Amino acid sequence: MTPPPSGGGIVTLLTDFGARDEYAGVMKGVILSLQPRAQVVDLCHEVPPGDIRKAGWLLEWSWRFFPAGTVHVVVVDPGVGSRRRILCCAHRGHLFLCPDNGILSLLLRNVRRPRLHSVSRRRYFLPEISDTFHGRDILAPAAARLLGGLEPGRLGPRVRSLVRLDWPLARRVSGGWEGEVVDTDRFGNAVTNIPAGRLGRSRAGWRVEAGGTEVGPIRRSYASVPQGDPLAAVGSRGFVEVAVSCGSAVERLGLSVGSPVRVRRGRR
Amino acid sequence: MTPPPSGGGIVTLLTDFGARDEYAGVMKGVILSLQPRAQVVDLCHEVPPGDIRKAGWLLEWSWRFFPAGTVHVVVVDPGVGSRRRILCCAHRGHLFLCPDNGILSLLLRNVRRPRLHSVSRRRYFLPEISDTFHGRDILAPAAARLLGGLEPGRLGPRVRSLVRLDWPLARRVSGGWEGEVVDTDRFGNAVTNIPAGRLGRSRAGWRVEAGGTEVGPIRRSYASVPQGDPLAAVGSRGFVEVAVSCGSAVERLGLSVGSPVRVRRGRR
Amino acid sequence: MTPPPSGGGIVTLLTDFGARDEYAGVMKGVILSLQPRAQVVDLCHEVPPGDIRKAGWLLEWSWRFFPAGTVHVVVVDPGVGSRRRILCCAHRGHLFLCPDNGILSLLLRNVRRPRLHSVSRRRYFLPEISDTFHGRDILAPAAARLLGGLEPGRLGPRVRSLVRLDWPLARRVSGGWEGEVVDTDRFGNAVTNIPAGRLGRSRAGWRVEAGGTEVGPIRRSYASVPQGDPLAAVGSRGFVEVAVSCGSAVERLGLSVGSPVRVRRGRR
Repeated sequence: MTPPPSGGGIVTLLTDFGARDEYAGVMKGVILSLQPRAQVVDLCHEVPPGDIRKAGWLLEWSWRFFPAGTVHVVVVDPGVGSRRRILCCAHRGHLFLCPDNGILSLLLRNVRRPRLHSVSRRRYFLPEISDTFHGRDILAPAAARLLGGLEPGRLGPRVRSLVRLDWPLARRVSGGWEGEVVDTDRFGNAVTNIPAGRLGRSRAGWRVEAGGTEVGPIRRSYASVPQGDPLAAVGSRGFVEVAVSCGSAVERLGLSVGSPVRVRRGRR
Repeated sequence: MTPPPSGGGIVTLLTDFGARDEYAGVMKGVILSLQPRAQVVDLCHEVPPGDIRKAGWLLEWSWRFFPAGTVHVVVVDPGVGSRRRILCCAHRGHLFLCPDNGILSLLLRNVRRPRLHSVSRRRYFLPEISDTFHGRDILAPAAARLLGGLEPGRLGPRVRSLVRLDWPLARRVSGGWEGEVVDTDRFGNAVTNIPAGRLGRSRAGWRVEAGGTEVGPIRRSYASVPQGDPLAAVGSRGFVEVAVSCGSAVERLGLSVGSPVRVRRGRR
Repeated sequence: MTPPPSGGGIVTLLTDFGARDEYAGVMKGVILSLQPRAQVVDLCHEVPPGDIRKAGWLLEWSWRFFPAGTVHVVVVDPGVGSRRRILCCAHRGHLFLCPDNGILSLLLRNVRRPRLHSVSRRRYFLPEISDTFHGRDILAPAAARLLGGLEPGRLGPRVRSLVRLDWPLARRVSGGWEGEVVDTDRFGNAVTNIPAGRLGRSRAGWRVEAGGTEVGPIRRSYASVPQGDPLAAVGSRGFVEVAVSCGSAVERLGLSVGSPVRVRRGRR
C-alpha cells in the first residue's frame, strides 16, 4: 500500500455509538491530536448496539468508494475489555481496524488468508487504557499512526485466523433463486441477498415474491410503479431490493431481516 | 465564479438519507476519492423521505452562509432512475446539484432565467451507474469535478426550464398579514412565512395569532416571557416565529405546517 | 496558547440543535467562510433542548482529547437574545465559547479565577445579528477569528465571574461511597459520580447497589458477566458505571439521572 502523503488521508468511523453521547467526537479528537491533517469521515454511528452483522454489512458497501490508503475503523464491541483481540487487516489497499468479533466476515468471505495483525503494542495507544472504551484508547490512536505511515506489522504480531460469522447466501433453485432479506434501510426498502448480476440482462423476465407477497417483475426504479405500490428493483449494492414507491416495504409488506424472498422466471 | 484553489473547497450534502445507512458516508467517499482536499459538510440528512419542500427550505436558509464557490448537493430524489433530469444551477457564485423535482423552487423564486445545465455526460460519473443511487453514482462525482474547476457547461447541455413548486406566500390584508406555518424545528418552534422585515421597526406594535391562539406581541427573544408561555419572535431566517419559552409551540399550541397565522396591528 | 498554524486548527461544536434542521450546518458555513482551512468537528448535537448540565458533562469528557489550540463552541442557549453574556474562556491551552448560563460549571469546578472574556465586540460578528441564533451570528464567527489567531481579549472586556451550577458530588460515608447517576448513555449504561480512582486498586473488593438493586462487585468489563446480567464497571470517564451485559441498565434496573448509587466494601 502506498503510504498517504505526509499525514493527510482519511479515517472512516463506523460505530454503534449513536449521536447522543460524546464517544464519536472523542475518537475524532484523539485522531486529530496525533494527525492534525487527517480527514475523519463518519460512515455511520447508528449501528444498533452490538449488531456486528449490520456493521459488517455497512462496511462492505462503503469501503470500496473511498480512496486507497483509507483507514476504516469499526467499533461495535460488546466484548470490550475482555480477551477478544483487536485486528488490523490490510485488504485491497485499504486498512481496517476493529475488534475480532466477526465484523470482517463479509469483507473477507472470499479471502482465505487475510493479511491480519493483532493490535497489541501499547506504545501506539493512549497512555492510559480503559477497559470500557478501546475505540478511544486503542483504535483511534492506532488509526492515526497508520495514517502517518506506520506499518501494520508494527502494531502487533501477525495473526493467522479470525472470528468468522456465517452470512446467509441465496440459493440457486429450480427456476430461480431463494434468498432472504438481509438489511432494511431508512426508506423501508428491504435488501435481499439475491445478486442481480446473476439474473442476466432481461430483468423484466423475473418475478419476485417477498414475505409471501407477490411484488411482480424486477423494475428499473422505485418510480416505475404508481405511488404506494410494491415493487422489486436492483438496489445500489447490486442485490434485488423490495420497495414500495414513495412508501415503506418494511411496513407495507411486513418485511424484516430474515424474511424469505424468491425470484422465479416468468412473465406472470 | 472564481474556481476554488487547486481542489480545495466545500461540498455540502443535504439529503433524506437519515443516519442509519451508509448512503451519506459513501457519497463522501466518492467525493474524496476524486478530490482528496475537499471539505464535505453535512448540512442535513434528516429531511423526511421524499420531502422536496423541506429540502428546498433547508437549502434556502443555508447556502448563503457558505463561501462563494461552494457546491451544494441535494439528494431528495423519489424519482431516481426515472427520466427526471439532474440539474446543475449556478446562482450568486454558488453551484447547486440536484434532481429536477422542485428542490430549487424557493432558491430561484425570483430568478426568471436561472443558469441551468443538465447533468448528463457519463464521462464525469462513476463507471457504473445504478438506477437507485444517483447521489453516489452521478451527483457526488459531478460535485467533485466542479470543485476541481470543471465548468458546469461540461456536465451537459444548457437547460431552459425546471420544475417549480408553488411556495405559500403571506398575504397583506387590512390591518396586517395573513400567512401560515411553513416549517417546525427541533425545538418545537413554528416558523411562518410572514417576513419580519415588512413589519417595520416597532415590532411590539403587532399582535400574533397562530392556529387560533393569541400569542401576543412580537417579542425580542424566546426568553422575553415566563417559561412555558407562548410567544412570537423574529426567527433567525427573518420570519415571524411562534414559540413557547423553554417548551414546544408545536405541542403546546397544536401547530404544524399549514397552520394559519395572522399578524395584526394593535397593542391589545 | 500557541496560535494554530495559518488558519488551520479545530473547532468543535456541541449543541442542542438536533439533526433535523440546518442550524449546525449553517454554523459550519460561517466558520468556513472566515477560516476555509478550519476543521469543524461535531462533538454532539443531541443535547436535549436547553439541557445545560448535559452539555457541560459532554464538554468535560471531550475537550481534553483534542489538541491544544482547539476552540470548543457550545450552543445550548435558552436565554438567546436576553441579556445573558457570551463568554470566551481560556483553559489549559484550549478556548471555550458559550453563553454564560452554567455550561462551564463542571469544566471550571476547581478553577477559582478562570480566564474569561466577554464576547461583545460586534466587529467580530456577522454584519447582521438576530436575537434568536447567536450560534450563527456571534459564536461561529468568534470561533473562526480565534482560530485565525485573534486574542480572546479582543472579543470583549475581561470578566470576573460566571454563572456556576451545582454539580452533585459523591460523599464518603462509613464503609464506602454514596453518589448518584449523573448521566445515561446510548447503551443504557448509567454513569455515576463515584470516582473509581478513589476506590484503590482492588476493585473486586467493593459491592455496588444502584436504584435499590444489588449489582455485585466492580467488574473489569461489560463482558465479565453472562449476557443480560447487571454489573458495575469502571466507565471510560473514570467513574463507576452500572450496566447490563448486552442490555440496558436504564431499562432493566429502572435507572435515570438522580438514581442513588452506593459502593460498599465487602465480598458479599
